Order: sequence, then structure tokens, then C-alpha cells
Amino acid sequence: MTLLTDFGITDTYVAQMKAVLYGLAPSCLIVDISHEIPAQNIYAGARALAETALLFPTGTIHVAVVDPGVGTQRRLIAAKLRGHLFVMPDNGLLSLLVKDFSLEAAVELTERKFWRSPVSHTFHGRDILAPVAAYLAKGGTLLELGQPIHNLANLMEPCWKRIEGGVLGTISAIDHFGNAITNLPNSLFKDFSFECPVLTWINDRCLEWRWCAAYGFAPPNTAIALIGSNGHLELAVNCGSAALEFRLQVGDAIIVYC
Amino acid sequence: MTLLTDFGITDTYVAQMKAVLYGLAPSCLIVDISHEIPAQNIYAGARALAETALLFPTGTIHVAVVDPGVGTQRRLIAAKLRGHLFVMPDNGLLSLLVKDFSLEAAVELTERKFWRSPVSHTFHGRDILAPVAAYLAKGGTLLELGQPIHNLANLMEPCWKRIEGGVLGTISAIDHFGNAITNLPNSLFKDFSFECPVLTWINDRCLEWRWCAAYGFAPPNTAIALIGSNGHLELAVNCGSAALEFRLQVGDAIIVYC
Amino acid sequence: MTLLTDFGITDTYVAQMKAVLYGLAPSCLIVDISHEIPAQNIYAGARALAETALLFPTGTIHVAVVDPGVGTQRRLIAAKLRGHLFVMPDNGLLSLLVKDFSLEAAVELTERKFWRSPVSHTFHGRDILAPVAAYLAKGGTLLELGQPIHNLANLMEPCWKRIEGGVLGTISAIDHFGNAITNLPNSLFKDFSFECPVLTWINDRCLEWRWCAAYGFAPPNTAIALIGSNGHLELAVNCGSAALEFRLQVGDAIIVYC
Repeated sequence: MTLLTDFGITDTYVAQMKAVLYGLAPSCLIVDISHEIPAQNIYAGARALAETALLFPTGTIHVAVVDPGVGTQRRLIAAKLRGHLFVMPDNGLLSLLVKDFSLEAAVELTERKFWRSPVSHTFHGRDILAPVAAYLAKGGTLLELGQPIHNLANLMEPCWKRIEGGVLGTISAIDHFGNAITNLPNSLFKDFSFECPVLTWINDRCLEWRWCAAYGFAPPNTAIALIGSNGHLELAVNCGSAALEFRLQVGDAIIVYC
Repeated sequence: MTLLTDFGITDTYVAQMKAVLYGLAPSCLIVDISHEIPAQNIYAGARALAETALLFPTGTIHVAVVDPGVGTQRRLIAAKLRGHLFVMPDNGLLSLLVKDFSLEAAVELTERKFWRSPVSHTFHGRDILAPVAAYLAKGGTLLELGQPIHNLANLMEPCWKRIEGGVLGTISAIDHFGNAITNLPNSLFKDFSFECPVLTWINDRCLEWRWCAAYGFAPPNTAIALIGSNGHLELAVNCGSAALEFRLQVGDAIIVYC
Repeated sequence: MTLLTDFGITDTYVAQMKAVLYGLAPSCLIVDISHEIPAQNIYAGARALAETALLFPTGTIHVAVVDPGVGTQRRLIAAKLRGHLFVMPDNGLLSLLVKDFSLEAAVELTERKFWRSPVSHTFHGRDILAPVAAYLAKGGTLLELGQPIHNLANLMEPCWKRIEGGVLGTISAIDHFGNAITNLPNSLFKDFSFECPVLTWINDRCLEWRWCAAYGFAPPNTAIALIGSNGHLELAVNCGSAALEFRLQVGDAIIVYC
């Protein structure tokens, strides 16, 4: 079982969910994906889930809680995709995976007998999602949990497009090292040569990056462009932070000339 | 088994404790409650323990280390309450639970044969509490560990009281989302109507909060008051931070007019 | 199995490694040593490993990834020392342990059949080290993984020396509490008396510290010197931060007069 939230690690919210999970399914194994998803940022949660979930073994139950609508009319769901189970609010958290893989089944969580009682208005992760996930871990099936549904909420995802002289995309994440990860896929750069620098236009500035296979091929503090471990163009500064040095932020538009 | 400390996650102190625990009790399962309790803040540790420990299954062993007195004459204890075991310094960490549930048994840890040798002066979590907890996990009993004691150290806990025109309480925590959690219980607000705003006096300012059942019922950036998942009045800003916006801090006095 | 990285806990890099590990070796138990090693700081990683790894039971597999040279020609290795196994880049991460304990065996990882395919250029932790460690967890042996090697990369380690009137050392770490941990071992202070203050020269200032056995023996906010839990001289402020109060940093030279 995995856990992905925007709860942070200072408070006890994550531990409260684990207490419920281990109480109901003592033999499950819980792995934290991250609890530092920016607060209420569904898109960041969806990205984290998309780049990690399917690396786990088939049959893993993924519980994801980035839930600004907690307590309102938004649905809670359990879904199946590529043999993995997902328990989460229906707010787009699964949409990046649904785009690439077909949804095998989904239900709206309506069967209250699987929930804790009473249910708080502000912590459905502990009171609904955790007991439902524990029930699945013990062999329960989706159809026991509620009514089948066929359409899930969708996220507007920033897309890229070809423009005259290059491609236009977005910085979709800044990682712990200050690397700026774009939404421009590998396939766009097949013809690039390590001998030519990569030219970009970001925030009204033209920047030049040395095209490398890996960070360590450039001298320290060199601005480099490479294909990151998730298969997208990444802008980095070897042994430094591209985000700090060039003031890059999530959501910045980027043009790569080619 | 659970672990609660003020050690942070940057250093290896937590891992050193886990190494000792898994070395002595290889089949135990350790769940982190939090390691980001503010340094030396016993009250914050006691709150975290009180809101989480009893959600775990009966028989869980809770090891808590917020221990500014490490190496001095303060006692180390093992205690039993509601079928749960607690291993910790006797400095008030258990006092919020003892207030609500009766202590079933407690001993002072004096039997050195269960400790690591030598014992450092500054890390009793690793050298005394971890091996004692591992011994309990393997079936050891409290009475083997030392002499029974009957009174534990107490914390001064901020309390609330009715005053003319309202109630006077305290902000007892600011969570990861910037929500300000007060010490004013649910029961005080039974007569409140969702149609009337909640008026508070905090830090010489009168503030008005929309009374909601859950964050998402208000538009983004609205100041709202609700009953949080631990059953106390909570002040929040939907999709924002009440703490930042209104400069709220732990320990601030709050008057709610009613 | 333990995991030590400089990946931080915000991104999903750690979870991606765990997904691969649990996928290939479902019954292994993974304990995090720390993921907050300062980015690319091999010496900090080596210290964390040296103070923690051997506390775990014999046979533990330690996977360490602080790897600024990822994707370049630096070697990846698996090694055995004191009955523990280590899987890591050969960049000095093991050198503090090798200095104190003799290396029992080491191989360069060259057998690609144990790796994920394809191997990314920037995330060998996920693509090479994790599957190799999982293979060892299932009973694989070092010699299957590649060719034996006999010399590992070494780190320049700051050393201490006796000078006229005292000893000259370095601050090797600042911990979560702001305690400054030096590289001056216990043995240098055998003759010190709790009745005399400790005098130091750091950053062109003479500072006086009360010599204590433990933090809590001094009044709050007192500057104290003590022997920390890893056996070295430590400078602290009881209930405060020595690092903040005296602007101490990792790498600062320190003279202790004696």
C-alpha cells in the first residue's frame, strides 16, 4: 500500500491514517510516496502518482489525499488501473494515469458500513479512505464499496505545442536539487546533438544550456539540459540549483528553439 | 510500535533508535508519529501523542522522546494506559492522556540489564528507551523493568473558561496548512448557526469568521471557523493560511463571542 | 535494508527506489537513515553512514545514494564490511567506515542482467543500485554482481592535531538542535574537570563553554561543551541553538585550549 498526501510531516495527520490502516489490516505494508505535495495542489499530486505508482508491484493499493473539497459534495472513489487499486477523492488526482492507461473499473464510495463512525467533516482520509483501503487490502472488492462510475474528474493539464522555430512547453516541477523539469518529452529531442547548446526563452530571457547525457559530464556550476529520469527535458545546474540561479518556477512557459 | 521525537529528519538520531529496535526485536513494525515536534516542546509532544496514540491497535508500544532533561535526574518510565504501552521520560509527555484515561500501571526504568552498555549522557532514546521498548515488544512485562510508581509528572495545560459574553481559550497548535487549532471543545458550539459569523478577539483585533462544516464550503481565501478533526474549534482560510494572514501563533489567547 | 540519500522527501525519487526494491524483494524491510543529506555532499553522507550503519543487525544491506557523478565514469560498487553489505557509488561514501574497519570484499557492479532496463542516465539509484540490493536481499552474492576490486575511492577527511596550548579541529556537523559536533574525540578530554570552563577560538572569537555531562545540567540558554552521543566534543546551548547564537558552520576551524 502507498500513501500520498499534502499533509506534511510535522502534524500527526499521516500517523492517524496509518493507525487506522494498521488497526484494520495489521499485515499490510505502507510505503510513503510523499507527504510534501504542495497544499491543495492536485496537479502536483497527480504528477507524483503518475511517475511512481506503476513502479510498485501489481495489486498495490495507492491511497492519495490532496483534497481541498473535503466535506463538500465532491465524490470519493476507488478505481482500478493496470492491476493497481487507487483510493482517493475524484478531483483529478488520477487523471494523468487515466490519460495513458485505460481505467479498468471505478466506484463511488457510498457504502458507509466500511467507514469509521462518526465521520469528521474535515478528515475523510482518516475516516473514509483509510478504512476502505484497509478493507481492500484484506481482499475486499471494488463493487462492495459503492456504485460503479464511468467518468472521473479531469485536470486541465498544461500541454506543449510546436511553434515556428521550436516547441513551447511549461516547467511542470522544480525538484529538491533545483532542477526544472519540463513537460517536453524525450521524443522531441532525438535529433539534438551534444555538440550544440540548447537555446531557450523563459521569462523574457534567452538562456543557453549545454546539452549533456548526465549532470556530472559538465563542470560544476554549468547550466545544462538533459533528459531526466522520467523521460522529459530537464534544465539543471551541475552541483547547483537551476531554479535559484535563473529564477525558474513551476508554470513558467518555456520555448526551446530547434 | 510508534516513535515520536523532536529529533528532526535530517540527522541520523531516529535511524540510530530504529537500528537498536530492529536489532533487538526484528519482527516489530515501527510507525513514525512525527519527528518534527518543536525542539524541547513537551506540550506539543503530549498533544501529538494524545491525538494519535489510541487510534493504534491495543497493545501498541509508543516510544516518545522529547527530553530536554536527558542525562539529569528526571526519571524514565514505562506505563500502561487503555491497553497501550508507553516508554518515555517522565516529564509530562503522557499527562494529556492521563487526564482523560486512567493510568493502569507505571514503573520507573531502573533495571540496567535491559539497557545498552555503555549509556551515553545525551541519547537515552537510543541507549535506554529503545532497548526497553524492544524488550516489551518481545513480551517483557513492566514490572521487570523497574519499581512501580504512582504519580507522573504533570504539564500545566492551557485551559479555557467562560467569561462574560463568550469563552476565553488559547491557540494550541498551527498545523501544516496554517490552520489555527484552539483548545475550545466542540460542545461549546452546539448552538452556533451556520447563518451567523463567528466573532473572535485575538491579539487586540476583532476578527470575523464564516462558520462552516468543512473548508470547501466557503470560497477560496475566505476566513472560516469550523470544528476540526480532533473535535476543537479551528480557524482557517480556505486554500490559504490563517496563521500567515492573521499572524496567529501557538499560545495566542482567543475570545469567542457567543 | 537501509536507505540513505540526498534526494529530500518532497519529490518521489525515494519512493521510486522503494517501489523497485519492494517489487523485486517483497519481504525486505526498508529503514530510512536520512534523505536530507545536503545535496551532493559526500562527506555528510559518509558521516551519517558511519554513525548509523553498524548499529543495525549484521547482514543488513545499506543502499547509499549521494552521487554527483551519476551517469559518468565513476564506478558503482557493492562491498562487505563487518558482516554488513553496502551498495553505492564509489566516491568516498564508505571511506569513513573503511578507515576504522577492514573491508572484507568489494566488487564493481558490471553485470547488467541484475539492472533495470533501460538504465536512465540520471537515476542509477532506481535503475542499478535498487535492483542489485534487492538481489542481495534475496540471497545473491557479491561475486555474481561484477569484478572484485581492492581499492575504493577515498575522501579527504578533516583531521585534528595538537598545537601549542591546545588542539585544533573542525566542526564536522550542525545537528537539528543547532548543536555543533566537532571532530575532536572523547579521549582528548579525559583530564578536563567539570569545574573549569572550556575555552575555544572559533572564527576569530574566544568563546567560553561550561563543561557538562548532559544538556540539562546547565540552566537554559547556557553555552555548554560536552561529549556527544557519537563520542566527540559537542558545543551546545541548553534549550537553544549554538549554531545560531555563535554563527557556527560546518567546516569552521576550532581551537580548544588545554
